[in-house]
Amino acid sequence: MQRSDKENFAIAVHGGAGPDSEHIHKNLDGIKKGIEDALAKGYEVLENGGTAVDAVEAAVRSLEDNPLFNAGRGSAINSKGEVEMSASIMDGEKRNCGSVAIVKNIKNPISLAKAIMANTSFIGLGGEGALDYAQKIQIELEPAAYFITEHQYDVFRKKRFDEFRGTSYIASEQIRNRMHGTVGAVALDIHGNLAAATSTGGTENQKEGRISDSCLLGAGTFANNETCAVSATGDGEYIIRGVIGNTISNYMRLTGINVNEACKKVIHEDNSDIKGDIGVIAIDKDANICLEFNSERMHRGFRLKGKEPVVKIYPDEQS
Amino acid sequence: MQRSDKENFAIAVHGGAGPDSEHIHKNLDGIKKGIEDALAKGYEVLENGGTAVDAVEAAVRSLEDNPLFNAGRGSAINSKGEVEMSASIMDGEKRNCGSVAIVKNIKNPISLAKAIMANTSFIGLGGEGALDYAQKIQIELEPAAYFITEHQYDVFRKKRFDEFRGTSYIASEQIRNRMHGTVGAVALDIHGNLAAATSTGGTENQKEGRISDSCLLGAGTFANNETCAVSATGDGEYIIRGVIGNTISNYMRLTGINVNEACKKVIHEDNSDIKGDIGVIAIDKDANICLEFNSERMHRGFRLKGKEPVVKIYPDEQS
Repeated sequence: MQRSDKENFAIAVHGGAGPDSEHIHKNLDGIKKGIEDALAKGYEVLENGGTAVDAVEAAVRSLEDNPLFNAGRGSAINSKGEVEMSASIMDGEKRNCGSVAIVKNIKNPISLAKAIMANTSFIGLGGEGALDYAQKIQIELEPAAYFITEHQYDVFRKKRFDEFRGTSYIASEQIRNRMHGTVGAVALDIHGNLAAATSTGGTENQKEGRISDSCLLGAGTFANNETCAVSATGDGEYIIRGVIGNTISNYMRLTGINVNEACKKVIHEDNSDIKGDIGVIAIDKDANICLEFNSERMHRGFRLKGKEPVVKIYPDEQS
Repeated sequence: MQRSDKENFAIAVHGGAGPDSEHIHKNLDGIKKGIEDALAKGYEVLENGGTAVDAVEAAVRSLEDNPLFNAGRGSAINSKGEVEMSASIMDGEKRNCGSVAIVKNIKNPISLAKAIMANTSFIGLGGEGALDYAQKIQIELEPAAYFITEHQYDVFRKKRFDEFRGTSYIASEQIRNRMHGTVGAVALDIHGNLAAATSTGGTENQKEGRISDSCLLGAGTFANNETCAVSATGDGEYIIRGVIGNTISNYMRLTGINVNEACKKVIHEDNSDIKGDIGVIAIDKDANICLEFNSERMHRGFRLKGKEPVVKIYPDEQS
């Protein structure tokens, strides 16, 4: 029976937590299908005995390629009218990790983060240096136009118009962005290893060069076989301040509470007073999954070994 | 007596943990004086009733301006023969924070990180976007030549020669860098607030675009009035994997141990098996200071209210 334990596997994904919107209502079926497709990609890897790292990469790539999600194609457009993306991945076995910040032209930022984790002695690369490395290892590139969707352009134009009415450059920076999005995945593989991955296009009309929580190991992404794998979404600044991923893991390791209790504590107790959205997906070594958020919705789903996928958007259907 | 408690203050700084070297032996007096000068700058702010944030900024600026330390002037030279710097700062009161990654031409990266914390709704900026913002708010800039020291050029040239003998681009990346450096400060002010700041020029001949732990909140820099303020130094990749700053804070918050015990646990127990250097400086709300490391040396010092500064380099003089 030790063996059947070992052969358990599961995956969970998210497509961002935040406020509800008309865009979501209009695209509800497409969003749910996107989550289901990502789960299928990750599940296939795990079912074939693949690693949790490969499973979370496959799931996140699927969401990066889907223009309905704010990562890869369909990323938010920044203050310069360009797409800059961030991503990170972490392997719970030895806590190896990789991240990319403010990258352009990389079709799948999560795959570049994974290549950095696998092939280099450092962890993070950003900007031109990341593009240079991507070219050297022949990661797939796309022209700037690939990443732009009409929906994101409309949002950018509207935000920009709103911000022009702000009183100064700095004031405009302070207008809270309420339309963020991120994608992520966490998985347990049959070898008993956990992994987490997160990828984002950032926030609409964000300052060029803004570094998102999605590329910050410990905050947006964390994995440790001893505890859990976590991917976070929402208002990145609160995710960074609370170092959400690592804090959930520390609750489990230092106080002995389970993954569900740890996620609830961090979101609903430690961060009960914040004026921002936080959502997390987390999984432990026994395939216990927690999908927890304080926002109006979190695009999310999970699939346990041998079971059908479960996909949800709003809290009233909360798992 | 409540009042005298409140009016306590203290500061600690570090100038990097790592292996010993001939360069350090030759410059021992200059390094000790640099640490002392940084302590004096921070102490002056605190003595005059200034904030912990302003004190750690002043101390780190002093080290950034000093060519003997790897931050600001005297930064390590990357694989393109250029200087790219990273820095972060965190205010323990509300856990506000700011960071800059892979920036060029910024005389004092820590001051740009502080300006981002004070004036924007986001936390991190990198690359060209950071430079653009620095120009808008008129942060002091310097030409590339300002940052280059002959010592760092010699180290870069030697590393480069060694790496040309490597078998491939990727193999060369994997050669562990053993000559890293970072600067940082932590402080308690008379208002009872804690703050931490860290700044670095990265590692010698590092890949262009490498993002250092020094700009990763939670890892290289963390502050929370409830627990402690921490600045870490050493092999950045281990500091990121262990999310060192936040983990020390979580030990205190979740298990009730003190700042000394928490730093020792993280360095000598949790990370006892790593093949890398880690050093931390930490302070709590009662001005208890811990300067802990596993390396051959850590340039470090502290000064308590009304006391003389204490400056040390090697473990045998360990405080």
